[in-house]
Amino acid sequence: MLLEGQGINALNHLTIGGCDSLELCEKYGTPLYVIDENVVREHCRLYKKSIDEFYNGNGLVFFASKALCNLEMIRVVNSEGLGADSVSAGELYTVLKAGMDSEKICIHGNNKTDEELEYAIKNRVGRIVIDDVSEIKKVDKIAKANNIRQKVLFRIKPGIDAHTHEFIMTGQIDCKFGFALETGEAEEAICKALEYDNIIVAGVHCHIGSQIFESEPFKEAAKVLVNFMADIKDKTGYEMFELNLGGGFGVTYTEKDDPIKFNKYIEEVSAIIKEECAKRNLVLPFVMMEPGRSIVGTAGVTLYKAGAIKDIPGIRCYVSVDGGMTDNPRYILYQAEYTALVANKAGDEKTEVVTLAGKCCESGDLLGENMPIQKVESGDIIAVLTTGAYNYSMASNYNRVPRPAMVMVKNGESRVIVKRETFEDLVRNDI
Amino acid sequence: MLLEGQGINALNHLTIGGCDSLELCEKYGTPLYVIDENVVREHCRLYKKSIDEFYNGNGLVFFASKALCNLEMIRVVNSEGLGADSVSAGELYTVLKAGMDSEKICIHGNNKTDEELEYAIKNRVGRIVIDDVSEIKKVDKIAKANNIRQKVLFRIKPGIDAHTHEFIMTGQIDCKFGFALETGEAEEAICKALEYDNIIVAGVHCHIGSQIFESEPFKEAAKVLVNFMADIKDKTGYEMFELNLGGGFGVTYTEKDDPIKFNKYIEEVSAIIKEECAKRNLVLPFVMMEPGRSIVGTAGVTLYKAGAIKDIPGIRCYVSVDGGMTDNPRYILYQAEYTALVANKAGDEKTEVVTLAGKCCESGDLLGENMPIQKVESGDIIAVLTTGAYNYSMASNYNRVPRPAMVMVKNGESRVIVKRETFEDLVRNDI
Repeated sequence: MLLEGQGINALNHLTIGGCDSLELCEKYGTPLYVIDENVVREHCRLYKKSIDEFYNGNGLVFFASKALCNLEMIRVVNSEGLGADSVSAGELYTVLKAGMDSEKICIHGNNKTDEELEYAIKNRVGRIVIDDVSEIKKVDKIAKANNIRQKVLFRIKPGIDAHTHEFIMTGQIDCKFGFALETGEAEEAICKALEYDNIIVAGVHCHIGSQIFESEPFKEAAKVLVNFMADIKDKTGYEMFELNLGGGFGVTYTEKDDPIKFNKYIEEVSAIIKEECAKRNLVLPFVMMEPGRSIVGTAGVTLYKAGAIKDIPGIRCYVSVDGGMTDNPRYILYQAEYTALVANKAGDEKTEVVTLAGKCCESGDLLGENMPIQKVESGDIIAVLTTGAYNYSMASNYNRVPRPAMVMVKNGESRVIVKRETFEDLVRNDI
Repeated sequence: MLLEGQGINALNHLTIGGCDSLELCEKYGTPLYVIDENVVREHCRLYKKSIDEFYNGNGLVFFASKALCNLEMIRVVNSEGLGADSVSAGELYTVLKAGMDSEKICIHGNNKTDEELEYAIKNRVGRIVIDDVSEIKKVDKIAKANNIRQKVLFRIKPGIDAHTHEFIMTGQIDCKFGFALETGEAEEAICKALEYDNIIVAGVHCHIGSQIFESEPFKEAAKVLVNFMADIKDKTGYEMFELNLGGGFGVTYTEKDDPIKFNKYIEEVSAIIKEECAKRNLVLPFVMMEPGRSIVGTAGVTLYKAGAIKDIPGIRCYVSVDGGMTDNPRYILYQAEYTALVANKAGDEKTEVVTLAGKCCESGDLLGENMPIQKVESGDIIAVLTTGAYNYSMASNYNRVPRPAMVMVKNGESRVIVKRETFEDLVRNDI
């Protein structure tokens, strides 16, 4: 299994964005995050094009910066015309520093601090997604002090079950995020917000989960939200005009994964929105979505060097690499599955099944169990695919392991976009 | 439940090391890691004293620096006469920079890179724990090039089941660490190492798990290892002289936890070692142990500010704080349980049961579920106890959340030992 932008060259080496993965390791060292710029750009364009095609361009795509937040990544999505959502002051700082127009920034978070709200509003972010009733008054007060009217959305729990891992499920009522529909708290919060002069109640937002493969739950959520907007209009006379459907679109980690292509999703959801708006006599809302993983997930590959190999007879073969849970904690967190290959034997048949272990002093520090792979020898370069999202962004310095460098590749050229951490970086804040 | 060094003052505030926790928050901000220096020192002294008392001082305690590795922490344990174990070049760098005598450093890791081995040997570390057969030749070669004989231990899987969480179990044969006894690979590796001129085969090492409450598995492991040393002597005539029993001693996270005091453990294990050595006619080995959590775990408290509070009728009450999985990923990793209290109402009865949620855009970002606590209001300071180990060391910048500051408290005085990360720190390596 290879993904977009990947190939095998005459040396039997994996290529990423036209670059020989072995050459990348030689030049930049291992472990190494590699992001294929063209793949990111193609995903951005497909989202935009689909909104143009199926929804008359009446929408905006926000890159969910929590998936991969660094200056160059934000510059790339910005140059493709996407906005960015930010879930903390640190993300907002990064996104602004990367030159994103603040109007195209959407702010999230179940527990935004007062400082974060102030920072966002002072910087004139386009939208703040209200997650808790206590935020309404705070936003109004800060907006007033800054002499603006702040556009807000309300995060709604539409009650959709998105068939995904317990820890990455949202949208259900037992959740730290947002307002429930069935208890009336969503309606109550919106009615309350309508009373404040410095708040513009633009619309509603939902996020029903992560790594979702079907369009059905998204369509169901859109339907619920449009009808909620109509109910609010019926009750208050106020018509909201924006609908943010969040993210959660699945990507391919292994051959088992068969996500719906997101243009298809946008086509189907657009149809539902039009249908429901017509039924309920609503003006078509401005539509937003917030893909993160589906923009950058498959664009990323992590390259490691294989070290110790322990074949425990009758049990399993452990292949240890020079990274692990520090650069990719998704296995230890969620037992997430990945595809691996030996980058210097990329075209060979996968005849082995191994457990890829990291180098941390922690038994659970694995990148995957029972992974089909080519015959591995110590010194080989191991490529783990689909590491663009939630790898660098979730990385730690556990065991004081410096975080890897990240390079962006494009048409056979490569450039560092995040420098490798040094030992000096590790003690920089130690006194 | 309060722990050593903690109290409640006349203002009804939690005190840590004689410092008012509210004053600490005011002075240093939240979230804040607080480490009680006296508690750390007392634990170090109790370990040392127990070895003096029960084993004639014929041993050395290494602080497992992966539990909490920063310059000042290492200086403190160093000043108490402990050594330090290091599991990566980054830890070794930190430990050396903190002034630890390299003879008192022990190097671990299932996949030490060539660079790491070279860095360790060049710096004359006291011991390297060989984890894989491929390391023997490498260590010999580097030692030869540096004109030294390098002392090594062999990490053995003694096959002890330590009744602990699957992900933090070690010692069993299906493990990325060490050499199995039953397959003969441990014996084979040691016999091989004996042939190399620049290696001193000092002894054996094991680590049977984490957060273990009973002394039985430790005693069993010691027995297995001593008998293995005797078997090797019988077969080769070579008598190893060092025995490193690793760490894993449990601490109190909640009232349910009732760990054996480690002086008791040392007393019991010393007796077993003496007994088995007498039986098998061995000279008593130099004994080492590697506590991390039991030195610093209960010395640490994390202070957060409570923000959004969502009481979902019939379901649960979410109290969100201004930190979470970024500063303490142990709940999302292992569903680890903690004790929490409202620091500004420390003496009040715990009448509520809440779910403490972090501020990350991730449903699994919790610090605990169904935690008994005092009545919480937004703005209260929440203290989570026993966060000294594997919190700061496992922290991430997920959602680009800066890592908190760490202060050390002692006799009513406080000082910053790790500065709070800034937004500039977050983008420092971005290009």
